[in-house]
Amino acid sequence: MTARVHPCEAALVSLPQRLLVAVSGGVDSVALLEALVRLGRKPVVLHLDHDWRAESAAEAKKVRALAKKHGLKIIAGKSRATKRTESTARIARYAFFDEAAKKAGLHDLVLAHHADDQVETFLLQLLRGTGSAGRGMEPEAKRGRLVLHRPWLALWKKEIVAYARARKLTWSEDGSNADTRHRRNLVRKRLLPYLAKLTGQETPRHLWRAAEIARAESEWLDELCAALASRRELPVANLRAAPLAQQRRIILRWLQARGIADIAFADVEAVRRLLTDRDPAKVNLSGNRFARRRAGLIFIA
Amino acid sequence: MTARVHPCEAALVSLPQRLLVAVSGGVDSVALLEALVRLGRKPVVLHLDHDWRAESAAEAKKVRALAKKHGLKIIAGKSRATKRTESTARIARYAFFDEAAKKAGLHDLVLAHHADDQVETFLLQLLRGTGSAGRGMEPEAKRGRLVLHRPWLALWKKEIVAYARARKLTWSEDGSNADTRHRRNLVRKRLLPYLAKLTGQETPRHLWRAAEIARAESEWLDELCAALASRRELPVANLRAAPLAQQRRIILRWLQARGIADIAFADVEAVRRLLTDRDPAKVNLSGNRFARRRAGLIFIA
Repeated sequence: MTARVHPCEAALVSLPQRLLVAVSGGVDSVALLEALVRLGRKPVVLHLDHDWRAESAAEAKKVRALAKKHGLKIIAGKSRATKRTESTARIARYAFFDEAAKKAGLHDLVLAHHADDQVETFLLQLLRGTGSAGRGMEPEAKRGRLVLHRPWLALWKKEIVAYARARKLTWSEDGSNADTRHRRNLVRKRLLPYLAKLTGQETPRHLWRAAEIARAESEWLDELCAALASRRELPVANLRAAPLAQQRRIILRWLQARGIADIAFADVEAVRRLLTDRDPAKVNLSGNRFARRRAGLIFIA
Repeated sequence: MTARVHPCEAALVSLPQRLLVAVSGGVDSVALLEALVRLGRKPVVLHLDHDWRAESAAEAKKVRALAKKHGLKIIAGKSRATKRTESTARIARYAFFDEAAKKAGLHDLVLAHHADDQVETFLLQLLRGTGSAGRGMEPEAKRGRLVLHRPWLALWKKEIVAYARARKLTWSEDGSNADTRHRRNLVRKRLLPYLAKLTGQETPRHLWRAAEIARAESEWLDELCAALASRRELPVANLRAAPLAQQRRIILRWLQARGIADIAFADVEAVRRLLTDRDPAKVNLSGNRFARRRAGLIFIA
């Protein structure tokens, strides 16, 4: 008889052999580390101390102890972010991951994001009104020199907590999670419970499914747009021949590839009007840059 | 000097000359009729009396009077739907429109759906968990012999109400709108105000934009899937070669084209597994029908 592999472990089987794993000390990442170790992996542990909360030094100590217990290498850092917003925290986190990956000579980083995180991300993207529709996080994504792996996107938090309990793990409760100043926490603590009350307990599953469909479609559309979006200048004639949605996505991906930040839907539409307008003024973009059309090409200056 | 055309009228300029217009008697459709008449159109007015509310006979009378005032032909009907749900109401409405269109010898039907309706539809689709992600309503769509036109999807209710007030129109308040038993009304009266409070007044605009992006992308994806989805049987080899999202959408559209009702994401995924499973059992679908694979083809029996 063979014992059934727990879903939390089964989801990790096809990950690359040599890995980095991000461990904050919360239940998700502690469970992820446990599952990796039980599969015989020896990941390098990355821990970033955000130093915002009184407990953060104690948490860092616990993660160090955990790595030591399993005989794993750990790379720990302190965040240099001064503002306590989610976006500065994210920037600091990835800067640290990048540096640590260089130090360790590895590329593959496993993250413990799960289905609840995915639903939150999807809702946040929808409500934020970015240049593209919501599509959640990708199970595998390149980010600079890193390849991010999110093998638990189809597992719900409660399954992970049950696994952690069954394995008798200890973890730190993340104090910042209770802080509803963060938009993500507003979605988690207020909006999702409200939605479940209003439209039914199945709502998170429906949203997860919508995110999964949108994510896969987005991946496919990006493939179909890559050839044009990666050019230095956009050829007007080719773009004109494309369907509306493809024009929009090519322009969005092209602006991103050209290093334009904070791209709103209005920016995409303004650039799109350069395809047809007889007398195009320049389109102003963030960072004092602009798009302009000349000789059948759209370019950024 | 030329007077500026009001946005409510400007949006109608490119509609076909000969039209049907659905007029419930509420502010949206009464304003739509006014705008059409002011543009010199002579649409045939369609009115369906749902007979659920005490005021419905009085509303029907007002719509008749309005049509008479403008010298327009009117086709009125009474709903045969017995249950008071939104979906039975919709089915009864389109059955009536279809019949009325035949009677009038016309195909093009204008509907007064606006940006607020679009946002509600988009949220309802997301929360309902259908086989595809939300994408809202289409500005132009075929439905049986009808071509539906929704020229006001980019205009907000408050702009339409302002137009109706400026034109000194009178209209009936739809009593069913206040009835929060309906899911749509839950979204309108509770969820959207809550979202605005929680995440900002711009939230409806962000959701509208997400719906618009998703709608245009969906249209494009459907084009890319039409050739395979319209076949009687799905060729396994061709489908296998397609990206995940394309497989899903081809299967969804194919099942719809084969007349399968109530298609859930799980059904699509089950049919998709027929592409790879060595020993495929049949996949049960609604209405006692099923999908099966044989000789490199997936078919429905």
